[in-house]
Amino acid sequence: MFSLGIDFGGTSIKTGVTVNGALIQRGPLIDTMKSGDRDSLLAAILEAIAELRAAFPGIAAIGIGFPGLVDSVNGIVRELSNVAGWVNVPMRDILHQATGLPVAIENDAKAMTYAEWKFGAGRGFSHLVCITLGTGVGGGLILNGQPYKGASLGAGEIGQMHYSSSGSPAGHYGNSGALEKLVGNKEITERARERYALAGRAMDCGDASPATLAGHAHAGDTLAQSIWDEIGTEIGVVLSDLVWLLNPEAIVLGGGVAKAGELLFDPIRRTIRNRTAAAIHENLQILPATLGNDAGIIGNAALGLEAV
Amino acid sequence: MFSLGIDFGGTSIKTGVTVNGALIQRGPLIDTMKSGDRDSLLAAILEAIAELRAAFPGIAAIGIGFPGLVDSVNGIVRELSNVAGWVNVPMRDILHQATGLPVAIENDAKAMTYAEWKFGAGRGFSHLVCITLGTGVGGGLILNGQPYKGASLGAGEIGQMHYSSSGSPAGHYGNSGALEKLVGNKEITERARERYALAGRAMDCGDASPATLAGHAHAGDTLAQSIWDEIGTEIGVVLSDLVWLLNPEAIVLGGGVAKAGELLFDPIRRTIRNRTAAAIHENLQILPATLGNDAGIIGNAALGLEAV
Repeated sequence: MFSLGIDFGGTSIKTGVTVNGALIQRGPLIDTMKSGDRDSLLAAILEAIAELRAAFPGIAAIGIGFPGLVDSVNGIVRELSNVAGWVNVPMRDILHQATGLPVAIENDAKAMTYAEWKFGAGRGFSHLVCITLGTGVGGGLILNGQPYKGASLGAGEIGQMHYSSSGSPAGHYGNSGALEKLVGNKEITERARERYALAGRAMDCGDASPATLAGHAHAGDTLAQSIWDEIGTEIGVVLSDLVWLLNPEAIVLGGGVAKAGELLFDPIRRTIRNRTAAAIHENLQILPATLGNDAGIIGNAALGLEAV
Repeated sequence: MFSLGIDFGGTSIKTGVTVNGALIQRGPLIDTMKSGDRDSLLAAILEAIAELRAAFPGIAAIGIGFPGLVDSVNGIVRELSNVAGWVNVPMRDILHQATGLPVAIENDAKAMTYAEWKFGAGRGFSHLVCITLGTGVGGGLILNGQPYKGASLGAGEIGQMHYSSSGSPAGHYGNSGALEKLVGNKEITERARERYALAGRAMDCGDASPATLAGHAHAGDTLAQSIWDEIGTEIGVVLSDLVWLLNPEAIVLGGGVAKAGELLFDPIRRTIRNRTAAAIHENLQILPATLGNDAGIIGNAALGLEAV
């Protein structure tokens, strides 16, 4: 069955049509900031939906994921982290009334988790944790063979767990030492700039983005390698806590920062091995996500079909 | 239905008969250390079972919980933390063959969790975390309305999660800063002794046990109060991580250290409130366990009946 997936991001809104977890047609890409206020964004989303339905009249459902707090049971966007004006928006009803189709809405990291579980690196696991390492650090859980959302649908916020209890910087919520304030995209860039400056090599670090830093490390730059080792160790300490608590079969890591690959996965695996019992880590798999930037579209489209 | 529960502890083995979660008869108390090796302990357990069955011929099942790694699916004690000689013991088969009754075996913290969920402070919750604060710190999870055990049945090890990433002391597994190495019974006593000594009040702290320290705090001793505040804050930081990850409806705290009551619960609640989003803490309940030292007998007996 054709389904329409929408991945609402702080930078852009991606759209597409899927069949059985495969993206068969990309739709319009909407610039989140340029499109302005909520009504303009809604209009742009409805236009994209109309365009894709014209090409694929068989589209049976719509799924849309948002970067923030989403009440997936009642179909309401509670609050978005980085897009103003989206508070308590009954998005499921709005889209259903405009299109007549079944609609599902979800948090973006949970939609990505669903996609990787159904069609990606997490396929076949009953106890799975998915993590997105990007501007922020988000996550989703599959436990006892089903998505786990928690009492108020807010579970999986791995980026808010603490690395250092005393240390700055504070998280969004007063949670000092929050992981995402250490290993978010921007924070990695800042760390790289500082480290290269300290080493008297400010000119060498380029734009200091995670991608550039990974390039330097792959080319043999030991400073870049040591920064990745440090970042992987920090993530590994927090994931060790998660492993003690949830004893998952697999942890899938996606998002831009995870593209550093073994530079990051090596210290993560080593840290988890060093900080947990063999009985809970010996069969644990730490895997890269396989659906990349399309995970959002694919996961939301699949969740839309679940609502049929 | 009558069921026989056995709570195998490092110090003593408690036995009893329950009906619908109520302990109606205590059986023999076995001294774990004094009873010697594994065969002597097994003989003492079988004797206790025979005695209780003589008094209650209607006993329909047996449940037994152990302080350590237990394979509840295959009925095998993998390893006990503080009792030597218990490695890969097929305890379910041994007891079943000796008694002819259905037998369940479980980890002690998980049996306590089951008891509090079915009959105690955790009744009615679908997303529940239970924690025992004693010599060590153990835990159990109820998620989506069912016990959650994880890939290799090792989930819920809250005491192994880290408070301080860098700090000593190391946990059993190389996990520096592990919560149970900060707030275990013995560690609280050591901390109290140090603190009173530093304040030039070594004579005032008595045996420095958590119970004594709670007595001092209740009597208005501000040093004792500040130590409890510190301990509650440390537990609260780790529980905040757990709240971000699992978004539970309730956290139930039991074990000897939890008897400090509001001295401990106050800073725990305050820390969770200060470190998490309102959406995930505003309806969260932090509750004292209600079944006390009998939770093990009651939980194991109930799990025994589940095996019928």
